[in-house]
Amino acid sequence: MNKQVKLSKRPIGVPDESTWTLETNPIPAAKEGEVVIKQEYISLDPAMRGWMNDMKSYIPPVQIGEVMRAGSVGTVIESKHPHFKEGDVVSGWGGVQQYIATNGEGFYKVDTNLAPMPVYIGTLGMPGMTAYFGILEVGKIKEGDVVLVSGAAGAVGSIVGQIAKIKGCTVVGIAGGPEKCKYLTETLGFDGAIDYKNGNVRQGLKEHCPKGIDVYFDNVGGEILDLALSRIRRNARIVICGAISQYNNTTPIKGPSNYLSLLVNRGTMQGMVVMDYTKDFGKAAMDMGSWMAQGKLKSREDIYEGIENFRDTFMRLFTGEKMGKLVLKVSE
Amino acid sequence: MNKQVKLSKRPIGVPDESTWTLETNPIPAAKEGEVVIKQEYISLDPAMRGWMNDMKSYIPPVQIGEVMRAGSVGTVIESKHPHFKEGDVVSGWGGVQQYIATNGEGFYKVDTNLAPMPVYIGTLGMPGMTAYFGILEVGKIKEGDVVLVSGAAGAVGSIVGQIAKIKGCTVVGIAGGPEKCKYLTETLGFDGAIDYKNGNVRQGLKEHCPKGIDVYFDNVGGEILDLALSRIRRNARIVICGAISQYNNTTPIKGPSNYLSLLVNRGTMQGMVVMDYTKDFGKAAMDMGSWMAQGKLKSREDIYEGIENFRDTFMRLFTGEKMGKLVLKVSE
Repeated sequence: MNKQVKLSKRPIGVPDESTWTLETNPIPAAKEGEVVIKQEYISLDPAMRGWMNDMKSYIPPVQIGEVMRAGSVGTVIESKHPHFKEGDVVSGWGGVQQYIATNGEGFYKVDTNLAPMPVYIGTLGMPGMTAYFGILEVGKIKEGDVVLVSGAAGAVGSIVGQIAKIKGCTVVGIAGGPEKCKYLTETLGFDGAIDYKNGNVRQGLKEHCPKGIDVYFDNVGGEILDLALSRIRRNARIVICGAISQYNNTTPIKGPSNYLSLLVNRGTMQGMVVMDYTKDFGKAAMDMGSWMAQGKLKSREDIYEGIENFRDTFMRLFTGEKMGKLVLKVSE
Repeated sequence: MNKQVKLSKRPIGVPDESTWTLETNPIPAAKEGEVVIKQEYISLDPAMRGWMNDMKSYIPPVQIGEVMRAGSVGTVIESKHPHFKEGDVVSGWGGVQQYIATNGEGFYKVDTNLAPMPVYIGTLGMPGMTAYFGILEVGKIKEGDVVLVSGAAGAVGSIVGQIAKIKGCTVVGIAGGPEKCKYLTETLGFDGAIDYKNGNVRQGLKEHCPKGIDVYFDNVGGEILDLALSRIRRNARIVICGAISQYNNTTPIKGPSNYLSLLVNRGTMQGMVVMDYTKDFGKAAMDMGSWMAQGKLKSREDIYEGIENFRDTFMRLFTGEKMGKLVLKVSE
């Protein structure tokens, strides 16, 4: 049977027990031109929270009654499609379900000899691509820049920081808890880490970025964005990738009070959506794969099991109780 | 004698009677390498409010006891300087005073055969240069863009909108009161005007920018910035030139709650300071002068008299009781 998580009610604030329902349906069959994929891993990303709101965005919202949208990786178990064959491992937008029948649109083959499956929804998937294009194309880092990244131990932030190190920047990460901070400096080679759960971020920024910040890659928004703005240098770039601190708000989003620092410092704040860079994913994957092979880029996945645990696992994104890329294993 | 307005106390919120003092001192004499300028007109600009706060900015704050900083235009009445002679009309940072002795740094000669003196502290001065570089270099307008400008009847906004029209854009202005709005559409050729004092800006934006906004030139901040953000199109540029609605706040500045619209729409919000473009002022002045000569660019000054009336006149920037570039005639 095929267990599927469907959106049953739009959450106001934190998603709860009534937000999704778990359905069990027959495993679909492939029609002409389709494949059936047995999904192994589902990607859990902060952006998913945004897709649940009924508002105009860069992608249509998930509709009530639809399978919850998610990136995934799995194995083709039946193919009536010219480009895929049984046994192919593919990644795409499979949603939170164990099986999917699809015409293959948006799915592409991946090579598990080069990297294990979960990496293809992490460092070599959307989060990694977001980091790559965000820090290089939007952040426009150059050697010697001071780069600050929030959500630094997460799927995107950890890659942002490592790419910035590869490019010769000084990199400071903001993360929650001593374990994550230690991981940033000792394992990933960040120059500094600030523990926002157990320290004073303002003071940490003074200590770790005494000359200010050239590039801030923002995954969190809220107070931390304001603190970063207060320390930007001339011509600084702020990459707006996300605002996880604000996604479950029931009150209006906190806008950055210090945004006039952009004026004083001739700064730029720019938003990004990874889908815009699709045509260059190939080149990015080659760079990233090569850095991984050289040991310069480390990928860490935090894998939980059981589609029944989707909500509890998803909520770890917001509590921070996870390390690296959050993944749910849905195959049984 | 030389009447001078000096900063006596840093204002909290709205400047009041205790903020400045009017002093009368002897007219200075020129030392070797100096000129004495009899100042005719003083430029009153929103940025002056920022220079009064004791904080790090793009320019040092005016110190207590110093003559209030201001742009000015006047006539050289004594010269011991090789580049200036008696009778030269010069513009620069003369401050709020009737006479100044200076080594000439930052002053340049202007030609009153081409334009009257006040224009050199308006359309052909800092406000005009701010408009020119802000909309062209930061806003990066191109033909067909929908351009929104706030403070649209002001010294900067009115020029921004007219340049955008010259470049083939659709231009909508936000201003306070029916007289200003009529001026925008009937005299300056804007495509639409929204009266923020007597109408619903959200509704006005829907009507006048039904397909959204490509470039928003922001002089005001606050609620209007948020409304503009809610209607930006893909790859929109927001030029942060000022935030006059927030300058007299005694509470923290209102940050733009809708800033995540930058993410959804891949927008850019960028700050600017006109001083960065000094080396290109000559070319800009040639363009602007040529447009003025062709009747494509209209300059309007609102001139008040008497250095004693400095504070009352300055406050018109914040109440909006003025039309075009606000100027104070200080010569007697």
